[in-house]
This record gives sequence, C-alpha cells and structure tokens, in this order.
Amino acid sequence: MGTEAVEIMKSNGLQVDFHLISNQKMENSFWFEEEIDDDLKWSFALNSVLHEGTSEYQNIVLLDTKHFGKALVIDGKMQSAEADEFIYHECLIHPALLSHPCPKTVFIMGGGEGSAARECLKHKAIEKVVMCDIDKEVVDFCRKYLTANHEAFNHKKLNLVINDAKAELLEREDKFDIIVGDLADPVEGGPCYQLYTKSFYEQILKPRLNDNGIFVTQAGPAGIYTHKVVFTSIYNTLRQVFKYVVAYTAHVPSFADTWGWVMASDLPLLLIQAEEMDKRIEERTGGDLFYLNGASFLSSTVMNKTVSHSLLKETHVYTEEDARFIHGHGIAYRG
Amino acid sequence: MGTEAVEIMKSNGLQVDFHLISNQKMENSFWFEEEIDDDLKWSFALNSVLHEGTSEYQNIVLLDTKHFGKALVIDGKMQSAEADEFIYHECLIHPALLSHPCPKTVFIMGGGEGSAARECLKHKAIEKVVMCDIDKEVVDFCRKYLTANHEAFNHKKLNLVINDAKAELLEREDKFDIIVGDLADPVEGGPCYQLYTKSFYEQILKPRLNDNGIFVTQAGPAGIYTHKVVFTSIYNTLRQVFKYVVAYTAHVPSFADTWGWVMASDLPLLLIQAEEMDKRIEERTGGDLFYLNGASFLSSTVMNKTVSHSLLKETHVYTEEDARFIHGHGIAYRG
Amino acid sequence: MGTEAVEIMKSNGLQVDFHLISNQKMENSFWFEEEIDDDLKWSFALNSVLHEGTSEYQNIVLLDTKHFGKALVIDGKMQSAEADEFIYHECLIHPALLSHPCPKTVFIMGGGEGSAARECLKHKAIEKVVMCDIDKEVVDFCRKYLTANHEAFNHKKLNLVINDAKAELLEREDKFDIIVGDLADPVEGGPCYQLYTKSFYEQILKPRLNDNGIFVTQAGPAGIYTHKVVFTSIYNTLRQVFKYVVAYTAHVPSFADTWGWVMASDLPLLLIQAEEMDKRIEERTGGDLFYLNGASFLSSTVMNKTVSHSLLKETHVYTEEDARFIHGHGIAYRG
Amino acid sequence: MGTEAVEIMKSNGLQVDFHLISNQKMENSFWFEEEIDDDLKWSFALNSVLHEGTSEYQNIVLLDTKHFGKALVIDGKMQSAEADEFIYHECLIHPALLSHPCPKTVFIMGGGEGSAARECLKHKAIEKVVMCDIDKEVVDFCRKYLTANHEAFNHKKLNLVINDAKAELLEREDKFDIIVGDLADPVEGGPCYQLYTKSFYEQILKPRLNDNGIFVTQAGPAGIYTHKVVFTSIYNTLRQVFKYVVAYTAHVPSFADTWGWVMASDLPLLLIQAEEMDKRIEERTGGDLFYLNGASFLSSTVMNKTVSHSLLKETHVYTEEDARFIHGHGIAYRG
Repeated sequence: MGTEAVEIMKSNGLQVDFHLISNQKMENSFWFEEEIDDDLKWSFALNSVLHEGTSEYQNIVLLDTKHFGKALVIDGKMQSAEADEFIYHECLIHPALLSHPCPKTVFIMGGGEGSAARECLKHKAIEKVVMCDIDKEVVDFCRKYLTANHEAFNHKKLNLVINDAKAELLEREDKFDIIVGDLADPVEGGPCYQLYTKSFYEQILKPRLNDNGIFVTQAGPAGIYTHKVVFTSIYNTLRQVFKYVVAYTAHVPSFADTWGWVMASDLPLLLIQAEEMDKRIEERTGGDLFYLNGASFLSSTVMNKTVSHSLLKETHVYTEEDARFIHGHGIAYRG
Repeated sequence: MGTEAVEIMKSNGLQVDFHLISNQKMENSFWFEEEIDDDLKWSFALNSVLHEGTSEYQNIVLLDTKHFGKALVIDGKMQSAEADEFIYHECLIHPALLSHPCPKTVFIMGGGEGSAARECLKHKAIEKVVMCDIDKEVVDFCRKYLTANHEAFNHKKLNLVINDAKAELLEREDKFDIIVGDLADPVEGGPCYQLYTKSFYEQILKPRLNDNGIFVTQAGPAGIYTHKVVFTSIYNTLRQVFKYVVAYTAHVPSFADTWGWVMASDLPLLLIQAEEMDKRIEERTGGDLFYLNGASFLSSTVMNKTVSHSLLKETHVYTEEDARFIHGHGIAYRG
Repeated sequence: MGTEAVEIMKSNGLQVDFHLISNQKMENSFWFEEEIDDDLKWSFALNSVLHEGTSEYQNIVLLDTKHFGKALVIDGKMQSAEADEFIYHECLIHPALLSHPCPKTVFIMGGGEGSAARECLKHKAIEKVVMCDIDKEVVDFCRKYLTANHEAFNHKKLNLVINDAKAELLEREDKFDIIVGDLADPVEGGPCYQLYTKSFYEQILKPRLNDNGIFVTQAGPAGIYTHKVVFTSIYNTLRQVFKYVVAYTAHVPSFADTWGWVMASDLPLLLIQAEEMDKRIEERTGGDLFYLNGASFLSSTVMNKTVSHSLLKETHVYTEEDARFIHGHGIAYRG
Repeated sequence: MGTEAVEIMKSNGLQVDFHLISNQKMENSFWFEEEIDDDLKWSFALNSVLHEGTSEYQNIVLLDTKHFGKALVIDGKMQSAEADEFIYHECLIHPALLSHPCPKTVFIMGGGEGSAARECLKHKAIEKVVMCDIDKEVVDFCRKYLTANHEAFNHKKLNLVINDAKAELLEREDKFDIIVGDLADPVEGGPCYQLYTKSFYEQILKPRLNDNGIFVTQAGPAGIYTHKVVFTSIYNTLRQVFKYVVAYTAHVPSFADTWGWVMASDLPLLLIQAEEMDKRIEERTGGDLFYLNGASFLSSTVMNKTVSHSLLKETHVYTEEDARFIHGHGIAYRG
C-alpha cells in the first residue's frame, strides 16, 4: 500500500494503524495467495496475520497486507481490503439511496463486515438500518477488529439481527425504502443462491419494499471474460420482477476484476442528472464520498460493447431449479 | 483462457491456434510471475513458451498462457495478451480516428507489435500508416509469430520504418492527420521519457500534425492508486500544448489494472454524440470492434471522483529536467 | 547453478552449453513449480524451456533451470537435473557393478534418459548393455537433446530395445550379470508397480540373472519422513527373494530429499573393503566418478537410527494384490 | 506434516499441540517462502502464524506450517522446524558429549532456542549447562512458545546468560568440558563471523576448555554444491587450532540441504566404536535419541568423494581480515 493509498485512507477518515511488525530484513517471505482461477494467482505480501477466528459456518482471518492494507479473508477468499473496499461499498449503497427521493429505512441482507451499514449511516436522514447477517462470529470479529466500522457498529440507528435473511424477511411485517443484497455470490452448494432467485425476489423481498422502494445487490464479477458467470443472469432475473433495472460496474483493484451491481425498482431510476446527484450527495451526506460522484455513477451504468450486448441478450432467469454458480474460486462469501 | 474468451477471439477474427502441448497430468507446473509491485504478484500458468528472441535493446518471449492465451513478454514484463489486447488497442486507436472528420494518414510511434496498425487499417479510408519502431528484432518477431497481425504487417498501406520516433519525426517533412504514441511508459533511464515532454510535443510532434490533426498516446496505469504515477502528468503536459485534451480509461484484465489514454488536438474533441460515433464505426470500419462503441467511449472519459479530481489538480509538466517515472515494475516497453 | 556446479559438470565431462537467452533484465519471471507434497513447493527459476515433446504415454520437457542446469521433466515431475543427476546415476549403477567380480552384461529396465547406460559404459570390461524402455519418444527425445549422453546412445555396446521390461525379460533367453531397475516409482494406476512385486522378482527377473548376478533398483525417497512410503517395502520384498540385500541412500539436492536404492543377490554383498572398491573404480573405470568412492559407498549403507529401525521392522511384501504406492506428487516416472 | 511425523514427535516426547485453525475450505492460501537461493524457492503452506515478536537485533515469528509443524523464523529465515529440528540438535550435541569420557560442564554459544540445552540435559551426568545468547527477546520468545523446550528452560542445571558469547568467554574464569557453537552462520556484516576465526578459537575459546575438552560447532550447509561456502573453511580453520578435527553431515529436510558440523579437540576423537557409542547413549541418556546411534554417527563422518576431496584440499583459514560469508539467503541466525 503506497503512501498515496494511506493518504486517501486517512483523508477518508479510516483509521490507519498498521501493525508493522516486519522490518526491512524480512521482506516478502509471507504471502497470501488468492486463486483467481485455476490458472491465475494473485499474491499479496503480508506484514502479519492480525487475527483469526472460526464460526459455525466459516473461517475468518484479518491480514495486514503490504499492498492493500488490512484485508478480511473468509474461507481463504479475500472479501475486502482496506485500500479499496470503499469502491465496493460506495457503489453498493449510494446509487440506490441517492436515486430514492427520501430514504429513511434500509434492510441489509448480509453485510456483517459493517461497511455497508457505515455507508448507509452517512445519510443523515436515514432513521433505521437493519443489518441481518447469519454469522454471529463474523459480525463479532468485524465489530472488534475493523476499526473503520467501529462507529457504525455502535450507531444507535443500527439494528443488528443474527438470522438468515430469507427467514427474517418472511417473519417481519415492516417495509423498507431500500433493501441491500450484500451477500456471497451464488456458489454451488452454498446457501446464498436461494437469495438470487426470481421467486425470492417476487414473493419474499418485494413485499417488504415500500411502494417506491429500491433493491440493490452486488452482482459478482463483470469483467470482459467474467460477466456472464452470474452478473448478466442476476440482471435479467431482476428484470422479470421490477419495472426498472440498472446495472453498473467498477474496477476494484484488490479483486483483480471489474465488479458489478444491479439496482431495481418500480420507481423510474436514472432520471436524475449528474448535477442533481452531486447536490444530493452534498446535502444528504455532507459530501463524504471518495469514488462516486454524479458523473461517475452515470458513467458506470454504461458498459463496453461486449458486456452491454451480453446484458441485453441474456435469457437466463435464476430459479431454484435453474441456478448459475460461481464455481470453485469465486468469492465464496460476502458478508 | 475460458471457452468464452476463445469464442470472442474467434469472432474477433483473431486466429486461435494454441500449441496445447500439456495434458491434464502436468497441470500448472509452469508459471510466469509478473511483479505488479514489490509486494504484489500476478502469476499465469503456462502451456508452453512458444518463441524466444533477443535484440540489441531487449529480450522478447511469446508465451502460451492458460488464462489469457498467447502473451508477449519483453524484458520480463507482459506487453499484451491475446485475450484482451483488443481492449488496449481499440482504446488507443479508434477514439482519435473516429473523432477526426476524415483521417487519411497515421504515424505510430512505437507499435512494433503490429496491433495498433491492425486497428488503424480497419478504417477503410485510411491511405497510409507509418509505423516507426526502434527495434527491428521485436518487429520481426511479432511479424513472424503474432498470427493475428499477419494481415496488417503485409498490408500495402503499411509503411514500416525502423528508427527512433523522435529522429524520424525531425527528419520527415510530411504531416499526419493522426499521430499515435504506442510507446513504453516513461521509465527512469529508459529512452522513452523524452517522448513525453512538453518540448517534444510542442516542437517536434505538433509540427508534423495537420491543422485539424489529433495526437493520442497511451498514458500508463490509471487505477485508483496508480493514476498519479504518470497518467495525470501526461494529461497536464498535453494541456500545455493543445487546446483540447481528453483522458479516458479502461480496465485491462491481464494488466491487473485500469489503463489510461490521452487524446489531444486543437480541433474540439468530444463534440460528437454516441449515435454519431456508432454510425462512424459502422461506416468507416464495417463495425468490427469488440470493446468500444459510442456510448462506452463517452463513458470511458468520465472517471471516478478521486481520479477526476487528480486530473484537474495536477500541476506537473513533463520536461527533460523534471520527468516522472514508473519505477521498477512498470511496463518497461510498449511497441 | 553456481560457478562451482558448472565446474564440476565440466570436469565431469558433461557438456555445459546452456542456452542463456535471458539477460539480467528479466530476472526470475519464469518458474517451474514442483509440488513435493500438497503443502510443500519447490520452485526453480528458468532461463528457458528448451524442448517439448509428447509420447503415447507421457509429456516430456527439457528445461534450462538457473539453479540446477538442464532438467528433464516428465508429466510435470522433475526426473533429473544436470547439476546432480550424477549422484542418482552413480549410486544406481556402480555399487552393483563394483560388487560383482567381473560384470560383462547389464540389462536396464527403463533408463530411457541414457544416463544409467552412460554410467555402465564407463566400465571398460562391460560387453553388452541392454536398455529396455517402453517409451520410444522419451528415448528419442533424450538421445537428441541430452548432450551428456550422446556418446552412450551411440555406443556400439548399447543395445536399445523398445518394449515393456517385463515382456522383454519373459521373451529373452539370455542371462545377465547385472539387472538394473531404473523405473518409475510404484504409482497407483501406473504400470510400473508390477515390476516391484515379489512374484516378478522371483519368477521373471531372477531367472534372467546369472548365478552370481546382482539386481539393483532405485527405491524411492528415503528421507526421515518419506522412507516408509515405498523404500522399506521394496527392501523387504527383495529380502524374500534374494539371500543378500543391501539398501543405501544419498541426498539428491534437486529432489529435495534423500533417495534410496536397494541391491540384491545370492552372492554375498558388502564383503569388499573401501580400499578394494577404490582400486576397482580405478582399474575398471579409470576413476571417473564424482560422488562415490569406496568409503562413501560403505557409509551410504549405514542409515540413521529411525530409518535403520524401519528397514529392520518392515513386514510389507509387494504383491499384485497388496502394493504400496507413492500417491499424488511422487516422482511419476523414471527411465 | 504427515501422520508419521506426528508419531515420531510424540514418541520423541515433544508436545504436539497444533493450533489447527484452518479447515478444509481454506487450503493452502498462506505460504511462507524461503529463498534458498536467488533462483530457488522453498514454500511452506501455513496453518497459522502463532506468535510474532521483535528484539533489538531481530524479528522473530513462530509459524504453524502444514508440512514441518511449528517453525521458528528469524528475520525471514527458517531456523528450525518441529518435525526435524531433532536431526540438527542431536548432531550438534551428542557426538561431542559421547566422544568425551565424562562430560560434566557445557557452554553453549548462542542456542537461545533452547533445543541445544535440551539435548545436553538428556545426559544425566551433566552438572552445568551455560547457555549464552545475546538476544534476550529471542530467548524469552522461545521459552514462552516452544513447548518442547519448556522443561529444559526450567531445568535447575541450566544457567542462562544474556551476553555476547565472546565477551562472556573473555570474562569468565571457569573452564568447560564441552563448548558448543550454536551460532548464526558467518554472514557479511553480521556479528557472528568473529566467532569463527582462528584467533577467537585460539585465544578466547580454547583457554576456556578443560584439557581433554571438546569444541563442536554447526558449520553451515554441506551439500554437493554448497559445502565450499563456509563448511570446508570452518573445518580447516579448526585444524589450525586443534590436534583432532572431525567433520560430519546430515540431510535436514526442512533446510532443503545437507548440513555440516565440526568437532575439534586435542583429545583423539573417533576412537570409540559404534557399539561403545550405543552403550554410552544407553547408559548416559537412557537411549532417548531418534536420529543418531553409533553406526550412523560414524557413517556421517564419511562424506562423498567431492566433499571429502574439498575438505582435504581447503586452504582458507578464517581470520578477521579474511572471512568467508554466506551471502544473502543463508541462514541468518541460529541460536
């Protein structure tokens, strides 16, 4: 992580307190290797392994990487890195909240890392953020060790629930302005793929949205060779359930790929201009964003020719019987 | 390289004739390791090393990687990969040619790989492409082994010159509609940084452009943490010399980063709309692009908040006395 | 491979003509990774991949490694490296030939690399060396590219047969003073394990040995934690068939382990003293060895407490019904 | 670390209480890479990083490796691994103690890990072991975390001194039966090379040995291509100072090399037979060794032809003005 990264993190209000145990003598002997694919590896030199933990569901580690700062690794897969998690989380949260005329309540499916809640809570008018994660140990680990999210975890507007998101939505009777899917990618054999199906969206999720509510979900890798894995299917599935659906992407360096998100509503989206969006960012959050502004969000909804074409031509719809999965080395869990 | 990649390559007209010598028994024993930075490695499993060569200036190897297809490696640094070089080369060539009302002549500084020329020659109205590369052995190697560029190397409109680009521009008296910088990044001690200075642009390059001519150059990495290395400086330097300057970026997966290009002219740029650009692509090239269309090009000129801000605030101007360099592990050579 | 290695190789009469294509600029970007075990890797920086080939049975590659010189890799596993193959091959051949009063004929099972034959042919009194390898392509590859073995491959005393060693021994009617097992380790599903069974030794191999003949075989890894995989079983199996059996070991650096061999005969072995063995080396070969002398051979038959104990206590006997295998990442082929 | 390794460790009385935090889902994402040489890497998959610490002199880490168990890493170099440190430490300690008629006092230069003291204390007749290590933090770290050495660290016969070994020997007036050099290899710029010089041995060390005392030191790598780095020089230097000098070697798997030790005395060494040595092991220690017995120790003093020859021909003598060093990637510290 270069000086500049640290600068951005600091100006970002994120605490930078690396445990720089290594000295110049032990340069780059420890590595964390991420298998991006069977034939492609992404290796991070480590300063140290800060914390480790296990839960009923998964293994969780907090690394101090030299290049990307602190990195959260769950079941051997990198979930987020201090240096660029703001790209992922700004893209996940703000487009939906800014597209909504006046969002007051948010329900986050997953999100145990706390960063999604942190971004929501930048909106001063928000009254309640429900974060519903299945894994108490992951939540406790992140609450304890991710200093950048301490304030969010302790925020009085945060309502933390340990439950399966599907079960929770079924049980609840309240509705939300925004529902956020900060879940693991659909992995074969994993529990999450049920939270990407048409029937889930239609029968369980949509009934918990207010009339002009917006749903947004992370939607997996969206690179020139990876966008057909799940991104286009998630987009097309949501098109079966909502009137207006917008996909957008951003390159997240620590993921070594371009990532995708999809926002959906029966309220027309993308009607506001860049200037209006900038104004809303200023008014609603005080301007505290680092990746997104109005112009760049609109730009992120326009993809290259190959990906645009694939989104238009996709016919697959996620159902319990016909799911698509990220095999093997995809991100196994998100939050 | 997945099936999909091969499909795109085939539909792309690029020949796919991997030398698949390895079988399932010898999986992933050979690796090419690229040091993206001292503390970050990018490792490609290899099927085979297809060809090797040396020149007065550098060492050149053609790899057959499993993930990105054939890859050209010069002095240990990956220059381009079959699977996604079209992103780099479409972005380098077409925005300038499409922004020009009627380009007939192109001068390419560097570009010995042949891909930049190949993209130029897709424009039917082009009358002459001068490719001026300093390294005959690299050019010969690419002509011989990069089957995707065979046609371009043999094209009657191609005028290949082995010379230093600066010397060549100084000697010539003809002018060009388009000049392309397909050069190595400015590396300390390397010869190329002189081709990024204000005085070079002003006194040597600009005099060889026709009145409404356009200059475009690759401009190094443009990621959230890498854009200040040289990208913003190249942009600001060109703003000292040309009235209109446009920067744009794209994520190139095999580079593990977002890349930048800068286009400059005294002719107003960015006046044409997406639809007009699509029309020109269809009319001028027959529509044979895979990454760019009108909308995605315009989108690529709008960057995220951090990078946009850095471009606006940059004050550094490249001069022979005050250059900025990609240290160590940058791409050491292009073309 | 340091200067010293090259010196030893040169004094060893082995031709050292590395294809030093790489220069200082491309340091250590190419690696060959050997999985010694699932959790242990051994990585060699490469100068180049010199040659590749395939056969009906396997894939074969000749690497130019920086540390160990040219290395032969079959199906992704390193078979022998120029810098230290003399350790393996001297230990395989000379103890048996030197223990025999006057060996004239040798039958090599496997050995297609040519190095075992090369060592045999150093004994001037040898009249015939039959090398019987199943894989013609491997033999042709090694004959063509392993310059150190050119002379052996062209030697008039060498009788090369392409056949399965078991079938060949069954068909032949001549007998031999020495039979050498230079075969792959017994790998599950591989063809070679049948050549390690009691019934093969008793019914097929022994009948082809002259009365005072000696059998010697490579016997897999013999390290403190690897010697029970197959080494002790091969030793114990041969004890069921021959009156005198001697096991010995040596550390082969490029294998990252201590290796084992077993010599067996009805002629008493180990009766000669170190001085007598040195005398025989001088008289029979002209003294042209680099690893073995009389004292070091005798020393190599005395193992550490743990391995000695395991050899004595081993009760497993290889039969077709009860074989032991080197799983996964063992050396898949030798010969 | 295979089941067998654990068995040996258990039978060895070493506590095996791995912190098996990882599960099958996160297989082999964490690696410790040891650069054996610039062009050769040795990589260990990790279960976890157990402890880290720093001292005035160095950085110290306790790893839990999958293959070799717990491993102590100082300044990025592996010092010893649970699975095979007994080979190194048995070879360091027992040959000298067993060659001595009746050793009662031992002085260990370095040895802060505690394993050298542990081996000494197996000899029931030993009355005093002085361990003199310069680095208090390393000693404290090992005392706290190396459970196999807990008993030794708490033993009433152990006399721990934190001091530079040279200064300590200069200051003391008592003499010892055995002095042990468990120091770092002589590394350029490191403090230890002064403890390998002729003048140190002659003027400082020898005066602190009783008349029939024995000095033994670790002597660096002793492989076919590494023995000339320091091993032969240390041997030859000691021959200038003592009447009887014996070198011996053993393959230590986790070092990926054969290692060397040198024992020196004015008392004739190697006079005892294997059987007598076995008897002494039984009588003096109760038989509690795993690598050495009488026969294997005698065997370890007989090296292969190349190394034997180098030992005989070595002419270099360590002096303060003419030292030899392990450059770069040697073991940087021992003890």
